Order: sequence, then structure tokens, then C-alpha cells
Amino acid sequence: MSCGPEFDLIERLFGQPQTAGPATPGMAALQHPAALGIGDDAALLAPLPAGEQLVFASDLLVEGRHYFPEVDPRSLGHKLLAVNLSDLAAMGARPLAYTLSMAIRRSRVAAPEQDPRARWLVELAAGLRGLADETGCTLVGGDTVGLPDDQPETFSLAVLGTVPVGHALRRDGLVVGDQLWVSGHLGDGAWGVRHRVINQRLGWPVPRLGLGERLRGLAHAAIDISDGLSSELLHLGRASARRLGQSLVLQVRLDALQACLGPAIRAAVDQGEPGLLEACRQAADSGDEYELCFSAPAQAGPALAALSADLGLPLTCIGEVCADAATATAAGPSARLVWWGPDNQPLPTDQCPSGGFDHFRAEVSGG
Amino acid sequence: MSCGPEFDLIERLFGQPQTAGPATPGMAALQHPAALGIGDDAALLAPLPAGEQLVFASDLLVEGRHYFPEVDPRSLGHKLLAVNLSDLAAMGARPLAYTLSMAIRRSRVAAPEQDPRARWLVELAAGLRGLADETGCTLVGGDTVGLPDDQPETFSLAVLGTVPVGHALRRDGLVVGDQLWVSGHLGDGAWGVRHRVINQRLGWPVPRLGLGERLRGLAHAAIDISDGLSSELLHLGRASARRLGQSLVLQVRLDALQACLGPAIRAAVDQGEPGLLEACRQAADSGDEYELCFSAPAQAGPALAALSADLGLPLTCIGEVCADAATATAAGPSARLVWWGPDNQPLPTDQCPSGGFDHFRAEVSGG
Repeated sequence: MSCGPEFDLIERLFGQPQTAGPATPGMAALQHPAALGIGDDAALLAPLPAGEQLVFASDLLVEGRHYFPEVDPRSLGHKLLAVNLSDLAAMGARPLAYTLSMAIRRSRVAAPEQDPRARWLVELAAGLRGLADETGCTLVGGDTVGLPDDQPETFSLAVLGTVPVGHALRRDGLVVGDQLWVSGHLGDGAWGVRHRVINQRLGWPVPRLGLGERLRGLAHAAIDISDGLSSELLHLGRASARRLGQSLVLQVRLDALQACLGPAIRAAVDQGEPGLLEACRQAADSGDEYELCFSAPAQAGPALAALSADLGLPLTCIGEVCADAATATAAGPSARLVWWGPDNQPLPTDQCPSGGFDHFRAEVSGG
Repeated sequence: MSCGPEFDLIERLFGQPQTAGPATPGMAALQHPAALGIGDDAALLAPLPAGEQLVFASDLLVEGRHYFPEVDPRSLGHKLLAVNLSDLAAMGARPLAYTLSMAIRRSRVAAPEQDPRARWLVELAAGLRGLADETGCTLVGGDTVGLPDDQPETFSLAVLGTVPVGHALRRDGLVVGDQLWVSGHLGDGAWGVRHRVINQRLGWPVPRLGLGERLRGLAHAAIDISDGLSSELLHLGRASARRLGQSLVLQVRLDALQACLGPAIRAAVDQGEPGLLEACRQAADSGDEYELCFSAPAQAGPALAALSADLGLPLTCIGEVCADAATATAAGPSARLVWWGPDNQPLPTDQCPSGGFDHFRAEVSGG
């Protein structure tokens, strides 16, 4: 962690009052995670409560790849943290603390306080802090590097969360017979990128932390939708097939996504373009959604319905996990998706969603 | 944490065999920190042993700012981790796990296996893994973003370490009467940058983890030297003055640094340029050193001498912490440095080290 003017910057914009004394064993760590926050070589966290284990994730967002240069800095600040918290949500974890590293243009720092370039960072900090306060995730450290004005900026966060020992939601927990579910709505991420509109989903994604915590004990496996439902389903399938030593086929009803199209893409459908099934395909490939995709046994249905009502968050059953005798290959257990159409027939390959986002090809993308 | 081809890349280059089952409470966490490593939304770490608390740091390295584009990728891999482990060392912590985020040129990934561009990443991974294995720090997650060929690459690591509760070394622990010490040698960092030579210090810095752990209970305060001794001393002084409610003056003998000049700058002095005192000044301002600067009571001298012999690492006493009646300002307790010359007189300001590194000004710099 570097110091100097750059460090003062983080302390000034993002800093919070520090606990002065050394950490006291047994203090309420989840309420006061940082015994010693910003300002030392590293952050020193209060001891975890007994029976909790750590969850650790990091993400990098690059200007022009993950967000448009003209982004509202407050929403960017929100999103930086949201995409990381979404990873915690997918594990069923509760946020604890995060570090922030920024490679930013020097002009943002050198500019006088009222200059829009200086304002930009203040707004970014406000967006970050808003979500951090709301979710109980404390900034405990950071690093800032100055860039020339012609270079794209980069932000990197690392987040820590906690989960009761043995109760984390994992990708590899699918069980044959499980139902597959998605939370909230899908499709507005891709819609916004395609039309270069920073809608609610692209600008202010909501990490499903409450849902993640409540799914502990109900769901068998979970993942967050950052690259697109279709590719996340394959991740669930492959990790679980490896664990089970059993090939899997995930049977998914494309038209089930009708029920969870996002408001932007839904409005477009209502105006006639795209068609409903094409919108479902786009929703299945849409990254930047930060909803959860999870599996649960059929008997969890009533509990999930109650949970949905309680959270005010739609939960939609989209398919089922089946054993796959057909694909036992020499390479070991594998997983595949079968998309079903409205006529209850498997869709031909060219009508299926294409499967997720590749940062090494595309221009602006999911976090 | 993103998936897709970029994810496969991290798994292929950096991945290690994973523990299959859920975390078992009471397992030897420090030997096997990752119950679930690369490949889920986040890493799930085994529960910490009772009586340990977490230390958390992150750092960002940017091509052209922190390292030359022509850097040996293996040494860059080493350095990425080393600069973060140095922060843990300065806290007296033991490494546990880390995440790696990379924004790298697409051509490195698209190139065929034997292409030098593809080789580059393999070498980087080898450098990282070498130091990770040596220090027991496990890669548990990561994120990769593809860049066009004209953009500078960026690497961001976040590291976790552990320390017995209440025994972390902090910046704010200086006590009036403490002696000030530095480990190893100084000056080669700045020397290498100035002459654009990637010497041992710039290319293969050694995080002083063993020293950090052994200083617990001996030292009152510690910091690692990433931006330069002179600025790190001020950090120690200011943080401690705040804690003590007492202004401090750190009396430092510039010529004491003669004893710990690095081999590259020492060789230059032997050839007549720079002069010895100028070399000491450069050593005091040299970033990228990753030695520790710490304070200890005078009676710790014999124990430190024994520790130095045991580790085969020079420890040099360079000064003393004094109360400062002169600078009790309205802004509250403060700290200042007084540099003493070989004639036992305080040096005039224009002959003092200038005080650390500013990433918002310089071109290539310490991590």
C-alpha cells in the first residue's frame, strides 16, 4: 500500500475515523471489522467471531472495457463495489471489508477542488461509500497511481466477507433433480451496452446479498450473473459434474425468461423489436446483471416462494438438472445445456443463446 | 471474479489442485488456507486458528509507472507479490492467500503457445508462483481483462496474512527514546531507476517476512520502505505523534546509511560518483527497497544483534525518537525529521534528503 500525496487523497476522500487502540479480542467484529483501517502498511482486522470463515474476491474494472468514459462517477463508484459484493452474495457471505486500488489521471488530483475533474473523484467516493455504508462493508486500505491524461483509468477492489463455517454456497453443488432458478430480472445489461444507454441495471446494479444469505441451507449451488446466464449455467454444470463424477445436462426453458425480462428490454419488446423469444435469448446472454442463478431441490419451492415475497424479489424457476448418459467422454464428466422452446421442443443450436461474454473480444463489457 | 476464457487462463497458468470437500473446522489453516480456491465466485478460506487476526493489503502496478515495459516477466511476477508481502512483513504478519487481477494485452493470450508474447505470461506466472510457494501464500482467485495492444498493462494483487491477536507491528507505535533501525541495504532502488538498470533490488526485492515475524515483541513500530526511508520515517512519526498526543522529532544520522548502501550504489561510490554523503542522501530517498524501518527500545539492542546474526541480515541503527516541544502547533501533534551530518551537526535543509516519492509526478517508480 503506497503513501504520499496519493495516500492522503484516499484518506481525504474515502477515510473514516479509525479505532485508536489495538484490537480487542471478542469485540463485535462484524460491526467494527477494522481495528486499524487506512493508514498503516496493511489493514488489521478484528478477530472473526468463532464459527465464521472468510470469503475473498477481487475484480478489476477498466475504462472503455467495463464502463463508458462518460459514466456518472457516482454510479461507477457504486458499481465498483457492487460487482465485488455480488461475488460475496453468490457465496452466501456477508460483507466485511474492502480495499480500493486506482490508476487515475493526474489531472483529477491536481485540479482545484471545484474543477469538474476533481469533482469526479469526490462523486466516485460518494457512490462507493453509499453502497459500503448500506451493506456494512468498510474501506480499510488502498493504493493510487497517477496516469497521463491519454491513458484509460483502472479500478481494482478486493473484498472480504464471512460465512458460517461449512455453509457457503458453491458452484459445484448441483444435485441431479434440482430445479434451476434466477433472481430478479435479466436482459437490461446487454440492452444498455448495445444501445450505449447507462440504464438502472448497468449503472446501479444491486448485489443480492440478502438473497444470498437467506439461500444458505435452501440452495445447493449458486453463482452470480456477471458474464451471462448461459455461461454461468455452464460453470455451475461443469464444476458440479467434476465434483459428482457424473455428466450433467441442464434442461432450461428459454421462454421461462419471459417472466423476468428487465424493464428496458421489456419496453423494447412491447414496441415490437426485438421479438419475445429473441429478447429471452438476449437476456440469457446478457452480462452485467448481478442477479443470482442457483439450484434447489423441488421441495424448496414453497420456501423460495415465501422468501421471494419476503424480499420483494422475483425468483423464477427456469429449468432442471439431469444426469447425462450421452456425454461421458474420455475427458471425464462434463456438462451441457439444452434450451427448450415454447413448443416444448429442444431448440436447434442456431436458436440457442450463444453463451456468455469474452473480455478478450468485446469492447465494453460486464465487470 | 470473471469467468470465460480469461478465467481459464488464470486457472491454466496459475491454478493449483483444489481441496474437494467443504472446509473442515480445525484443519491446519495456515498450511492449507484455501478450502476452495480459484474457480468459484470467490475464494472460501479455511477458518483461522483461534487467536489469529487478519492483515489485508493491496497494491497496483502499472506498466511504465512501476516497471519498464522491457522487464523480465519472471521478475515482474516475483515483484508483484513481493511488494504486497512486504506490507505484511511490516505488520509482522505471516502470508495466507492472495488474489491477482490483470489487465493485459489480448495479443498475449491469443498468441500460440510458443510465441514470445504468450511465453511472457507463463514466465510471469512462474515468478509469482516461485515466491508464493516459498512464502506459503496461496493464489485463491483472480480476474483478467483484455486490452488493445497500445494500452499499458496493469496488475493488482490483494494479499491476506495473519498475526497473533494484538501483536501486529504498527506505524503509530513509536515511543520517545526508541532507537530507529533499518534492515538490509538501501539505495539500489533509486540507482536502478536513474540508470534504467533492473538490478537485484528493482527486479527481485525480498519481502522481509522472517524479520517482521521476529520483530513482534521486540519492535514498537514498523513500516516497509516502498517510497523512501525519509518519507517512511515521517509516516511513522506522524502516526505516532497523533497516537501519543505529543509532537515528535526523529533525529537521524545521514552518515549511518554508509553502513547499509546497496551493492550497486556502493560500487558507484567506489568509482567516485556520487560522493559518499550524496549516496546516503539518495539511499534515504530511494523507493522500491522493501526493507523494514522500525523502532525499538535501546535495551532491545542485543536481541536485535542476535536476530541480525541469525537471519544473516544487517540491521543498522540510524537514529532516535525524541519529544519535540518546538512544534506543538494549532493543528495538533506533528512530527519532523532532523538529519545529522558527519560533523555531528544538523544538516541544512538543502542538504537533507528530499523525502519520498510522488506517483503523481514521476515516471517510473516504486510499487
